[in-house]
Amino acid sequence: MGERYRAASCIATITAMDLKQYIRDVPDFPIPGILFRDITPLLSDPAALKFALDEMTSRIEARRPDALAAIESRGFLFGTPIAARLGLPFVPIRKPGKLPAARMSMEYTLEYSQGQLDIHADALERGQRAIIVDDLLATGGTARAACQLVEMLGAEVVGLQFLIELEGLKGRALLEGHAVDTIIAYD
Amino acid sequence: MGERYRAASCIATITAMDLKQYIRDVPDFPIPGILFRDITPLLSDPAALKFALDEMTSRIEARRPDALAAIESRGFLFGTPIAARLGLPFVPIRKPGKLPAARMSMEYTLEYSQGQLDIHADALERGQRAIIVDDLLATGGTARAACQLVEMLGAEVVGLQFLIELEGLKGRALLEGHAVDTIIAYD
Repeated sequence: MGERYRAASCIATITAMDLKQYIRDVPDFPIPGILFRDITPLLSDPAALKFALDEMTSRIEARRPDALAAIESRGFLFGTPIAARLGLPFVPIRKPGKLPAARMSMEYTLEYSQGQLDIHADALERGQRAIIVDDLLATGGTARAACQLVEMLGAEVVGLQFLIELEGLKGRALLEGHAVDTIIAYD
Repeated sequence: MGERYRAASCIATITAMDLKQYIRDVPDFPIPGILFRDITPLLSDPAALKFALDEMTSRIEARRPDALAAIESRGFLFGTPIAARLGLPFVPIRKPGKLPAARMSMEYTLEYSQGQLDIHADALERGQRAIIVDDLLATGGTARAACQLVEMLGAEVVGLQFLIELEGLKGRALLEGHAVDTIIAYD
């Protein structure tokens, strides 16, 4: 397993750099001074999307989760394909006003806004091993709120898997104590 | 092909009814008088999710699209898994303020609100055969706006694929002229 994992990591390191070709930099979005990393070119290239999903799936599988929770909206793009591949229950973590049944809520601070995330109260069972998926790790505020929601239900967060990490925003510090993995990193 | 398609349809008709077991009815959501069809039990059951994706994928494949556009947010849950399985470019159709690059917009009326959808101007090429995916067909307003956006880019809508149809709201009438397919129907 160690040998096999190391080999897979090497391939990933080499090829993951190419994925940046499929991320479009859009300056001053959504507000002046922010350089937005747009994943739509990656989504529109079947080979790039497949590679990203393959990478995320193998890293998630290694953490042996028994449920996958993804954060609305862009986390959904990666969450269901990976959950379906691994045969995991999929749990949506949504913005307020979207989940219809009994729910728990958590407020959070984002890079350039504030918000709230909700989870259905029956979405996870006590002791379940949940992995959290989103497209981008920035300040980590959204992801931390997602962790708190999972833990409020008595489940365990066994890792957080992102496509992109903006390292300069130090999101990992906010998620200390959790295993964090990302495929594409920017300074 | 005709024989094979008929056989597949029979299987679908028998088994699709079971999927209703995984749809939770929530009365008075999001407003009094609306019976909300909650798909989260389906998402959290790996076999049910796989069956729904298998069904939607085979029906979409039969229309020979060369791109798949899905509507934010719940359309994303079905859009990327199907696009990845079929090796199709994935195009997000999003709510306003979300897509960062040059975009086209379309206003629409929903069952119980109003809204706007956006698409990136470079998301599709002229003449591309696009399939549109969403979780639910209600009045058809959202789906019609999505069709109009695809057509504004010069692409062709070769079909619309939904998981659920609320037949009483007559969404198909608003989408007349387009091929519409759904897996689960409610009166």
